[in-house]
Amino acid sequence: MNLLLTEIRHTPLLWLLAFVPAVFVGQMVGPDRHTLLFVLSVLAIVPLAALLSHATEAVAAKTGDTVGGLLNATLGNLTELVIALTALQAGQYLLVKASVAGAIVTNTLFMLGASFLIGGLTYHVQEFNRVTARLQASLLFLATVALLIPSAVRNADSAPAAAFTEHLSLGLSGLLILAYALGMIFSLKTHRELFVAVAHADDEDVPWPVGVALAILAGVTVLVALVSEVFVESVQEAAVAFGMTPAFVGFIVVALVGGAAEMASAFSGARKNRLDLSVGIALGSASQIALFVAPVLVLLSYVIGPAPMDLRFWPGAVIMMLIATLTASFVASSGRSAWFVGALVIIVYLIFAMTLYLLPPAAQ
Amino acid sequence: MNLLLTEIRHTPLLWLLAFVPAVFVGQMVGPDRHTLLFVLSVLAIVPLAALLSHATEAVAAKTGDTVGGLLNATLGNLTELVIALTALQAGQYLLVKASVAGAIVTNTLFMLGASFLIGGLTYHVQEFNRVTARLQASLLFLATVALLIPSAVRNADSAPAAAFTEHLSLGLSGLLILAYALGMIFSLKTHRELFVAVAHADDEDVPWPVGVALAILAGVTVLVALVSEVFVESVQEAAVAFGMTPAFVGFIVVALVGGAAEMASAFSGARKNRLDLSVGIALGSASQIALFVAPVLVLLSYVIGPAPMDLRFWPGAVIMMLIATLTASFVASSGRSAWFVGALVIIVYLIFAMTLYLLPPAAQ
Amino acid sequence: MNLLLTEIRHTPLLWLLAFVPAVFVGQMVGPDRHTLLFVLSVLAIVPLAALLSHATEAVAAKTGDTVGGLLNATLGNLTELVIALTALQAGQYLLVKASVAGAIVTNTLFMLGASFLIGGLTYHVQEFNRVTARLQASLLFLATVALLIPSAVRNADSAPAAAFTEHLSLGLSGLLILAYALGMIFSLKTHRELFVAVAHADDEDVPWPVGVALAILAGVTVLVALVSEVFVESVQEAAVAFGMTPAFVGFIVVALVGGAAEMASAFSGARKNRLDLSVGIALGSASQIALFVAPVLVLLSYVIGPAPMDLRFWPGAVIMMLIATLTASFVASSGRSAWFVGALVIIVYLIFAMTLYLLPPAAQ
Repeated sequence: MNLLLTEIRHTPLLWLLAFVPAVFVGQMVGPDRHTLLFVLSVLAIVPLAALLSHATEAVAAKTGDTVGGLLNATLGNLTELVIALTALQAGQYLLVKASVAGAIVTNTLFMLGASFLIGGLTYHVQEFNRVTARLQASLLFLATVALLIPSAVRNADSAPAAAFTEHLSLGLSGLLILAYALGMIFSLKTHRELFVAVAHADDEDVPWPVGVALAILAGVTVLVALVSEVFVESVQEAAVAFGMTPAFVGFIVVALVGGAAEMASAFSGARKNRLDLSVGIALGSASQIALFVAPVLVLLSYVIGPAPMDLRFWPGAVIMMLIATLTASFVASSGRSAWFVGALVIIVYLIFAMTLYLLPPAAQ
Repeated sequence: MNLLLTEIRHTPLLWLLAFVPAVFVGQMVGPDRHTLLFVLSVLAIVPLAALLSHATEAVAAKTGDTVGGLLNATLGNLTELVIALTALQAGQYLLVKASVAGAIVTNTLFMLGASFLIGGLTYHVQEFNRVTARLQASLLFLATVALLIPSAVRNADSAPAAAFTEHLSLGLSGLLILAYALGMIFSLKTHRELFVAVAHADDEDVPWPVGVALAILAGVTVLVALVSEVFVESVQEAAVAFGMTPAFVGFIVVALVGGAAEMASAFSGARKNRLDLSVGIALGSASQIALFVAPVLVLLSYVIGPAPMDLRFWPGAVIMMLIATLTASFVASSGRSAWFVGALVIIVYLIFAMTLYLLPPAAQ
Repeated sequence: MNLLLTEIRHTPLLWLLAFVPAVFVGQMVGPDRHTLLFVLSVLAIVPLAALLSHATEAVAAKTGDTVGGLLNATLGNLTELVIALTALQAGQYLLVKASVAGAIVTNTLFMLGASFLIGGLTYHVQEFNRVTARLQASLLFLATVALLIPSAVRNADSAPAAAFTEHLSLGLSGLLILAYALGMIFSLKTHRELFVAVAHADDEDVPWPVGVALAILAGVTVLVALVSEVFVESVQEAAVAFGMTPAFVGFIVVALVGGAAEMASAFSGARKNRLDLSVGIALGSASQIALFVAPVLVLLSYVIGPAPMDLRFWPGAVIMMLIATLTASFVASSGRSAWFVGALVIIVYLIFAMTLYLLPPAAQ
């Protein structure tokens, strides 16, 4: 507890933890005040995600490189996973899919673009390891391709087409998890030297004792799950109040909230001229959503969801994912960056956000 | 006037200026001879575009690097802009959009491909600055993406969809102009050293006095506007007479006519083994059409057009723009070229041109 | 004959030649046992393809680099061509198109991916000539683009649209063959030094005398044609028996059978750490299908087919070809490979194969 207080004093973001009890109080007092509950839950998830990310790293630091890397890779998107699981359980499949697509787009465009922009405001031209970045961009590209197929080959909504989409989604999920497992062997075992920069990301921080870290990991995951429930319940009606479309909320708001902790790490890396770290976090996190979170959600929909979920996305989301991945590949594979590259990537993100904000609901 | 005569003797292309008065005589004598007027106006626009380009450079050379670069960047596609504005005023929005898409495709495929081919016929392998080319290709890619979005997310032609497309096009235009302004700051101020090769393109020519250049700039712009009016009026009926589809005229004929002057510069660079220059002109000009000309046309359609114009293109045009941009990125990012690369890029252009030529009118 | 026996003892694959007479016996004895005939003809085509490939190389080795290269380039996909011609003559245009698209996808994804994987299991990181690989990937990309156009611009199946598609396909075929001829001049005459690695692929083998090689070339081509006839006749009903969709058979089975010989060469190159060779075979073979086999089939459909064949592919096939080409460009242009890159490329191939396997027949 003492340690937590030190941490809070150290990281101003954690003052937002005060909103966690506020969410629960809010829900008891006024369960119908959706807009307020939405704002409170957003503000509460951000510091919880930061704690989760920090605790994962602390456990990872204690358990040696391989197991630690495994933990980092698996729990790195825990916040996104818990939010998506809550939405899955509530049967809000459109929100689940939008949050998956949105996390990929947000990580590749906003996180990468803002890292380039932030770094570029301090450094004239930043160099980073082109080979590693291109490898990661290739993985991300291949991972995204898998998500595009069910939308690309779909046609009439006939009965055989529905069965086809369901079987295809199941098979894809299996192949994606296989690719993810192979990727783990690759980056943690056979070719770990290619990924060194990312592993030693936060070595300047004082690590937590492993017992504390594990307790925080468990406790905070429960808190995220509880707050996510309020978030998922309130998000639709709050969206209406704010004049936001459901697509915008799922794609942009959920992705920004869920990825806040990783963004903090990526931006801090850019400021310290360690762009390898920023690129690794942004592309690695996007790959992980595509290769691990998406298929796990499909498989879990058979267990906890009201019906099986497939991997068929809204065509606009498919185009955005494909453009985001291509953009990331282009800019990351050059190995150099300047502020304007970051600005342009953010503008592409703004174009997507604006499109989703303006989209008439029927079109989604 | 004396100077103009020297220039004409120096540049054989300028003998075509004789067609400028011919256009006006032609329109007075036979306002219904559309085919003749079309041919005359095409022949008249080519030398006017060359003069416009030369005058812009002369003014730019006198006003210092930054303001000069600004002028060059803004007025570099003045011919295309004036032709498109004339078509806009006449309410021919399909022609306007086709000419925007066609200018992007023609600059990235024909201008780049012919530069590679022309250079490759003299030099075995030509090298050029890969980093700059890749940066420019990235900008072009990001610029093109913005134009694709309204076509990608459109669906039924219902009333909310129409309002959505209009709002989206307005917002996109704002973001594109912002990107354009940032690009100017980047290439003229913070990172001008990356763009040096392009700036000193024509330093071997004798520059005009700035007063003469300004006068020519103003006078020729008026002439281009007047000739464009004849061109736009006659183009549809001439197209029928030549058996050309409207899509072919907008995409191919207008783009080749409007870009003739830049092509002359790009090809001359390739012949002198200065492929950096050719790549810079081709990709820079295409980026400028996407980032500046297209949004300005949308905004001006509210002022001078009969109705607001949106940025929704015919899907075939979107695919061609995307393929052209990807092709340019591929070949430009390798940093090496040989004649066959140029030949293949031109063949892709011929494929597009043939497709548009054969296209049944209803499909566009 | 003695030489053939030595060869068979040397290459275990050639024991499969025993299935060639088995096919003919099978067809006489039980012309309705489609499943058996299908399996027999598949097993018979594989060794014939290997012999064909070996004979072509032997003739090429004797006739000097230029003519030899020409022969290699033209006859390298002879098996695919003969199978497709047999299907063309039988009027099975869907099978022809599926086999063309499938050969491109299989060569770029499976052949390339398995080469990377096989090489990566022995060598930690393999390097290859990035410039040549990127050049070949560019050619392949441009070649594929041509095949996409008729599908991209098609719309209603009206009468003018049908005539448009036919004219467009004819024009495209002409341009593709022009590109192919230029590519030959480029790789065999003006820039042969860029392609050296591939030419000296099998210099450790004992070459056949040219007379024997020519006789084998002629005789085996006839055998392939005869076996292909059985294959094409039996494939549809066998597919039903195996629960395979026609798309899966055309795309995957025909492509794997027809490309077996080239795959053996590519994999052997990867095992010997000569990845330049593997990349050259995989991308070169795919380019050749797009630039030579596809247009020749269109042109020959006017002579030997029941009706003109166009180049309009099923949209799903177009997307797969485009993704395969982009994937190959990404991974080949990095110039480095490790086992995981190969594994991921194969997983993309498995995703496509699974999609085609599951596809309800109406959707194709």
